[in-house]
Amino acid sequence: MLRFDPGDERIRTTRTFRVYEGGGEYNVARNLASCFRLDSAIVTALADNEIGRLVESLIGEGQVDTSQIVWRESDGISRSVRNGMYFWERGFGLRSPKGCSDRGNTAISQIKAGDVDWQKIFVEHGTRWFHTGGIFAGLSETTADVATEAMQAARESGSIVSYDLNYRDSLWSGRGDRDAANEVNRRLLDLADVVFGVEGFDSALTNYDESKFEAAARSMLDRHTNIRFIATPLRTIYDASRHDLSGVCFADGKVFRGPTFENVSVLDRVGSGDAFAAGAIYELLAGNDARAAINTASAAALLAMTTQGDSLAATTGEIRGLSDRSNDFLSR
Amino acid sequence: MLRFDPGDERIRTTRTFRVYEGGGEYNVARNLASCFRLDSAIVTALADNEIGRLVESLIGEGQVDTSQIVWRESDGISRSVRNGMYFWERGFGLRSPKGCSDRGNTAISQIKAGDVDWQKIFVEHGTRWFHTGGIFAGLSETTADVATEAMQAARESGSIVSYDLNYRDSLWSGRGDRDAANEVNRRLLDLADVVFGVEGFDSALTNYDESKFEAAARSMLDRHTNIRFIATPLRTIYDASRHDLSGVCFADGKVFRGPTFENVSVLDRVGSGDAFAAGAIYELLAGNDARAAINTASAAALLAMTTQGDSLAATTGEIRGLSDRSNDFLSR
Amino acid sequence: MLRFDPGDERIRTTRTFRVYEGGGEYNVARNLASCFRLDSAIVTALADNEIGRLVESLIGEGQVDTSQIVWRESDGISRSVRNGMYFWERGFGLRSPKGCSDRGNTAISQIKAGDVDWQKIFVEHGTRWFHTGGIFAGLSETTADVATEAMQAARESGSIVSYDLNYRDSLWSGRGDRDAANEVNRRLLDLADVVFGVEGFDSALTNYDESKFEAAARSMLDRHTNIRFIATPLRTIYDASRHDLSGVCFADGKVFRGPTFENVSVLDRVGSGDAFAAGAIYELLAGNDARAAINTASAAALLAMTTQGDSLAATTGEIRGLSDRSNDFLSR
Amino acid sequence: MLRFDPGDERIRTTRTFRVYEGGGEYNVARNLASCFRLDSAIVTALADNEIGRLVESLIGEGQVDTSQIVWRESDGISRSVRNGMYFWERGFGLRSPKGCSDRGNTAISQIKAGDVDWQKIFVEHGTRWFHTGGIFAGLSETTADVATEAMQAARESGSIVSYDLNYRDSLWSGRGDRDAANEVNRRLLDLADVVFGVEGFDSALTNYDESKFEAAARSMLDRHTNIRFIATPLRTIYDASRHDLSGVCFADGKVFRGPTFENVSVLDRVGSGDAFAAGAIYELLAGNDARAAINTASAAALLAMTTQGDSLAATTGEIRGLSDRSNDFLSR
Amino acid sequence: MLRFDPGDERIRTTRTFRVYEGGGEYNVARNLASCFRLDSAIVTALADNEIGRLVESLIGEGQVDTSQIVWRESDGISRSVRNGMYFWERGFGLRSPKGCSDRGNTAISQIKAGDVDWQKIFVEHGTRWFHTGGIFAGLSETTADVATEAMQAARESGSIVSYDLNYRDSLWSGRGDRDAANEVNRRLLDLADVVFGVEGFDSALTNYDESKFEAAARSMLDRHTNIRFIATPLRTIYDASRHDLSGVCFADGKVFRGPTFENVSVLDRVGSGDAFAAGAIYELLAGNDARAAINTASAAALLAMTTQGDSLAATTGEIRGLSDRSNDFLSR
Amino acid sequence: MLRFDPGDERIRTTRTFRVYEGGGEYNVARNLASCFRLDSAIVTALADNEIGRLVESLIGEGQVDTSQIVWRESDGISRSVRNGMYFWERGFGLRSPKGCSDRGNTAISQIKAGDVDWQKIFVEHGTRWFHTGGIFAGLSETTADVATEAMQAARESGSIVSYDLNYRDSLWSGRGDRDAANEVNRRLLDLADVVFGVEGFDSALTNYDESKFEAAARSMLDRHTNIRFIATPLRTIYDASRHDLSGVCFADGKVFRGPTFENVSVLDRVGSGDAFAAGAIYELLAGNDARAAINTASAAALLAMTTQGDSLAATTGEIRGLSDRSNDFLSR
Repeated sequence: MLRFDPGDERIRTTRTFRVYEGGGEYNVARNLASCFRLDSAIVTALADNEIGRLVESLIGEGQVDTSQIVWRESDGISRSVRNGMYFWERGFGLRSPKGCSDRGNTAISQIKAGDVDWQKIFVEHGTRWFHTGGIFAGLSETTADVATEAMQAARESGSIVSYDLNYRDSLWSGRGDRDAANEVNRRLLDLADVVFGVEGFDSALTNYDESKFEAAARSMLDRHTNIRFIATPLRTIYDASRHDLSGVCFADGKVFRGPTFENVSVLDRVGSGDAFAAGAIYELLAGNDARAAINTASAAALLAMTTQGDSLAATTGEIRGLSDRSNDFLSR
Repeated sequence: MLRFDPGDERIRTTRTFRVYEGGGEYNVARNLASCFRLDSAIVTALADNEIGRLVESLIGEGQVDTSQIVWRESDGISRSVRNGMYFWERGFGLRSPKGCSDRGNTAISQIKAGDVDWQKIFVEHGTRWFHTGGIFAGLSETTADVATEAMQAARESGSIVSYDLNYRDSLWSGRGDRDAANEVNRRLLDLADVVFGVEGFDSALTNYDESKFEAAARSMLDRHTNIRFIATPLRTIYDASRHDLSGVCFADGKVFRGPTFENVSVLDRVGSGDAFAAGAIYELLAGNDARAAINTASAAALLAMTTQGDSLAATTGEIRGLSDRSNDFLSR
Repeated sequence: MLRFDPGDERIRTTRTFRVYEGGGEYNVARNLASCFRLDSAIVTALADNEIGRLVESLIGEGQVDTSQIVWRESDGISRSVRNGMYFWERGFGLRSPKGCSDRGNTAISQIKAGDVDWQKIFVEHGTRWFHTGGIFAGLSETTADVATEAMQAARESGSIVSYDLNYRDSLWSGRGDRDAANEVNRRLLDLADVVFGVEGFDSALTNYDESKFEAAARSMLDRHTNIRFIATPLRTIYDASRHDLSGVCFADGKVFRGPTFENVSVLDRVGSGDAFAAGAIYELLAGNDARAAINTASAAALLAMTTQGDSLAATTGEIRGLSDRSNDFLSR
Repeated sequence: MLRFDPGDERIRTTRTFRVYEGGGEYNVARNLASCFRLDSAIVTALADNEIGRLVESLIGEGQVDTSQIVWRESDGISRSVRNGMYFWERGFGLRSPKGCSDRGNTAISQIKAGDVDWQKIFVEHGTRWFHTGGIFAGLSETTADVATEAMQAARESGSIVSYDLNYRDSLWSGRGDRDAANEVNRRLLDLADVVFGVEGFDSALTNYDESKFEAAARSMLDRHTNIRFIATPLRTIYDASRHDLSGVCFADGKVFRGPTFENVSVLDRVGSGDAFAAGAIYELLAGNDARAAINTASAAALLAMTTQGDSLAATTGEIRGLSDRSNDFLSR
Repeated sequence: MLRFDPGDERIRTTRTFRVYEGGGEYNVARNLASCFRLDSAIVTALADNEIGRLVESLIGEGQVDTSQIVWRESDGISRSVRNGMYFWERGFGLRSPKGCSDRGNTAISQIKAGDVDWQKIFVEHGTRWFHTGGIFAGLSETTADVATEAMQAARESGSIVSYDLNYRDSLWSGRGDRDAANEVNRRLLDLADVVFGVEGFDSALTNYDESKFEAAARSMLDRHTNIRFIATPLRTIYDASRHDLSGVCFADGKVFRGPTFENVSVLDRVGSGDAFAAGAIYELLAGNDARAAINTASAAALLAMTTQGDSLAATTGEIRGLSDRSNDFLSR
Repeated sequence: MLRFDPGDERIRTTRTFRVYEGGGEYNVARNLASCFRLDSAIVTALADNEIGRLVESLIGEGQVDTSQIVWRESDGISRSVRNGMYFWERGFGLRSPKGCSDRGNTAISQIKAGDVDWQKIFVEHGTRWFHTGGIFAGLSETTADVATEAMQAARESGSIVSYDLNYRDSLWSGRGDRDAANEVNRRLLDLADVVFGVEGFDSALTNYDESKFEAAARSMLDRHTNIRFIATPLRTIYDASRHDLSGVCFADGKVFRGPTFENVSVLDRVGSGDAFAAGAIYELLAGNDARAAINTASAAALLAMTTQGDSLAATTGEIRGLSDRSNDFLSR
């Protein structure tokens, strides 16, 4: 999606916008490419108009391969097919962030099973990891099918599959709400190796209870025996500018907690969960263990909140500098 | 609509946009309010989200009354109802202007007969002039009905009605194209006193032939005896930065030519036709004659091209300064 | 006034300014219009030059009716009559905010009794509330008379009258200072129903003593038996970026405390008091009680400090979200 | 003065201003310092507030010595003493430039004979040239006296004195208009060696008649026998973006014409006359002849119009590159 | 190189820069990727610091493959190895463009034969075209060897090789000047199929003489029998804002002239020659003839001058729209 | 050096830079001029190109005398001599500041003993204070000699000499590292009256132990008996946005602690040490005692971190307001 950022101002009062690209699962690809320096590509669909080409340019900026984008012909007024946009102001102190999503009728919501040649992507290109999640699967009736198709193809090719349980009320409003989303998620979780988000678990850091987390994670593993790694960020949100942040994962039968960052300054919290996912994927792809994964994920989630835009504009050195300080931050 | 302007850059390469409000017939109201200092209001519909409120703020900037806007509840992702947007780069020299319209599913395209209390607008508020045109009428199947309803109510109340024959390919694509648009226009022309645009007439200035203009105008008057004033700008477009511009009207059985501005510098041509209409309406509302109307219309159309944004950011003094120099400009 | 904001820079080092409109009592009208969605108009005078027209455009942006502005002819160099301006940098941490006011010889300071047709404003337009205060009354020898005239006309028409005890040293310097200001205020307080600011009371939150507040308020009521509602914000200013904020009012013989917001992030504190006033007026106009008024006033005062510009760029939903959390904020 | 420039927008529609410093005779000092690399200082008065300090910083940017500025205490609201400001939009094509001057009650307009120690400036600092003109002399009743005093002191010290016949209607409105200005000018011309502007001569290039110029110049020399060099730019203004420009001077009993630049692109014409003066002064100070002076003056006047701001942001190399091409430009 | 653009201002007066990436032969790759939509990669070397990563991001923006960049370790202060930068202001009217190149000691100037695995690039990746030129070859003593090595490898792999005779005085100053550059060029021309620039031919459009062009081209072909296509843009530069532009090529024993664009508006002329080369390469790669090549090259060269930045920010549709109008432009 | 600041963004993701001037010892001169209003000049060398002239303009902005700059001819591509640049992003919360220095081969690093006429500077101009330090001395093999020469000349003329023990790893990398730097410093310390930085002392505020400071200071005095005043800031850095700050000095045989500012908001920490030095120098030059010096130095160091850019953009009034509150700040 094309993201419009009014900077220090509010959407309703600004006269200028800085644009970024962003979007649920896309951000993970961007972070893996521009921060973790891995080859990554985005499979999506865009309407072929000036907005779509602007989005393509922004994706290239982040070193993400744009060659797998499916381009749809534009009708000139975006009646039949559009590019998604969202407007997001980052909030300040007790003024919360506020967004306005304009994603009806997008090219990607219209994608159908069969539109993408997954064989080519997974087999020919030797893709090692495939990531998707609840936002893509929830875009329309057809996108859950595309997710299924892709995840199956990935598994068959030997690619690891990760899935983020992201949920947006607005996407499911009038289509069965949370229950329908859960239904889709559960179907897709049977095809995932790695999962971000934990069903039935409250990720508020102030209430964190390790036994509850472990129980929820084990319950998911019982239902979906294919899953090998479950992780979630943990947060306390004091206000738009101050959070506590940590992360926790369950793997190899054990719980691993990431470092806890207390009372940290937040510039723009969007994309923090995607940075968390990217951090974990990076370590797992490198063959590192769950401790490495949760440490890197937590530090990445933190750093993503210190820059504008959806993406993790940090280096692995910066992430390492924070993830190594596990649990012993200077508190103020 | 919310207009996104990349300034000196192109849409596909920019990273920042300046926003303006704009839109076919709306611009006329804006020009009458902010340039000609007449009370004017916009009757439209907007989705009630941050984008809609930004548009409202921009409309207020131009001193146009926003109290007649119909606010539609937003679904959170703009699937069911949206606010229109368009992206427009102004071109430079031989690089032409280029736009990208994103106006599918807008609140205004969903408006239906009966949604607006025209009695209140025309009778209670004592509205003296009503302007609409082919863009609004062409937005959807229902907007032509709304236009009919409004024009009839206006006429009954004694308000003068003007109509602009604006045509956008993209709006009629798949819905009968130019023929269908003409069909709608002709129906509505029976309800108009003043018309901008002339059927069957080529408005290129280089080919201008007064007898052809007169014939075309007379032919329209024959078909629609209610019409009292027909006018159109005349142009030669050398490139994005250089035009010739003039205007011509037919009224009281005679043709009146406006001043001719040759080889003028153009910054942003959008809204020039709406400035032309506003200039003519201003003079006619003031009880002035067709000569005054065509002179003011032509100068307003010119000045609208010397500023960014859809609107005529000029003063009546500046318009007068140019319209009085009829036909004797220094040529370079 | 036209406000020049150097953003993150200082006035003396910047090369660009963002402009806003703002000014003591005006901000209340703006907040009631753009945040609380009530019809409101500003009665002021402006010199008719490019600066005045820019101010008019900014006022329209905020949905405030500009039709009651009295326009004064400009002499071309602003020797005889000017538009007020002020430059304000918002400070950062221990660097305090700093302003530079340029308001000598303004059109509004020259306004005299008889210049405005208050009958039309209060009777014809059915105005329900009139707000003014010590800044306007202190602009010049004549403005106190205009305030008197206006408040009397308002009372006669049945409009509620509110008055803010705002005081600016610079306005009274060389004209009797605080004593002279108090003298004017006391005269005008006899014409007010609602008062913001409490004579003889220290509004520092750290020293807050309810009995002292009550005593000061009762003393004012004894002197001015017409007053029905007295309110003031309470603050502790740690530095430019961190405040504690609350509010308190006296009405119906009782004291009501608003929620206390501790250690909150402040972006730009200007206009916080005007947001406080607008919040209270909104609730009182809606017929709600003093508890509602002080809660909304306090939350509005807080949110006004989270955005740039004098105005309260928030929604009633955002205000409600904070005002309902009375006294039980998460403390860090 | 502090100059506010809305860039591509108009004053009444912009939301941001770029600031520059500028002002009639000051610009000459700036051009001599930053373009021609001569030591130069400005003698003026500023109110000591944030605006004054911003102006000081801008003056330093141009390498002009700020140590002779007289700082006046500010009263906090600029009622008694102010810093001058002007707002200027540069126009585009047939939309003319437009300004709004806010220079009433400035510190410099209040300067009086005796306020400046001219002895120190001319004798101790060894000043070789003093430039002033009709804008400074016209600011108030007292500034003409200060000009007289300064010019006399300069002459006595052996410094060359130049005077620009600049005239602004607005400065003399209500104070005797053009006649009063001429009266002051004539008095001061008796103290000048070099004069820019020619009484009784039309400087429109299209009407240029060398004999008329020579007659007017000789007539001035007859009246003021102290004058040794008289020069003026010659212009044709097609529109805000296109001028013809040249220059002419009279010295040593002969007329010298500068190169003629036809149909040149103009970005911002303000300060062109001051660049003309600076170009001539530079050559004369270097001991070069009238031909060099008029060539450099004309090219400098041209280049000043190709940049924003009042000043001549060019190098002597660039000026030389144009001044040498006298009269044989490629015409388009 | 990282390009710093002061926009409407001059380098010496600006306070902000917009950055772009750019550089002699690189621009051709960028144009082929972002305008002509061909896969293209840049083979270069960058110091691995924040500036290098910014340049990488800018290259990605233009859809150019960054995977062949050789990253050199940074010493922290860019003493041993740097990234090239250049500052460029585009000029306006008679004020010429002006640049300031800061390219000493760059990573790419230090590249040596053997540093790049050309086999992988040409054979494994199936590269169809290789472009380089006189700027790269002139960077240092070693880069000519790298060019030789690359061109030989390309030829052996069957890839087409093009070479641009670009010459920069500053690169050869102190190293033999034009003669030394010619010496290098001639050596490399023996390895080229396609050449941009013609030795011994004056490309000024006003002096264009087809027979002279043909003679010069034939002479080059005689000396370098491997060359199959020679082309050059033709220009007249009136001033920074106005050029005439055309192109001419020699192929298959015949001369082909491109369309002539007279008196066209120029925003930023940098990169026009690279756009010319890209246009020709695109057509030749597509198997089209020399007429198509010269038409597309000429139109591309023109459009590159209508946008900021080194690159051709245009679409093939826009290029086609201009190249088809060969020789019959409306003249003003 | 020319400093490039990406504002809220990171260097690798920004598209625009704000430029400032800055550099180790230079900032002290700037602070003394623009904040403390003392005459000050910078002795440095710049390459004479557009970048050098931009730097000159920025230096003038800060009221620093530019007449002692040695201008070196540019070779057009900055191969032989360059102007230094550095890119600096200020960090946010737990994301640390990050810089990228590009200072190889600068004009100033090439300066040699004999290049500057120190007699003229110290004797003719009556310079009262000379400040330099470890950055300048470490630029190259020749700059330590220039420092020696200058310090000796200063001492002979009666000027006070101060030296800052600034150390940059990157400058000494490959040249003997810290040991070689210490060697140079010690040689130069024999020529200093006032020293900033204390050898063998840890300036972390959390570990502060007055006896250790005193011991380290006394030890330096023993080695360099010429030193009369030694001072250093003390800091705790929680993250990029929050520091504790204080200062301490040793003079007249006693230790003086400055006020302690706890948990203060930091915008941009660069230049804080130079502000500290300037504050101390200002008081010592005014003949005030060590207590005044350390208080002013500490408050200046604090305020320098509340603005962008290297310089101390504060007034003496603001500094006084903070330095007087010694040790009794409200803690949050």
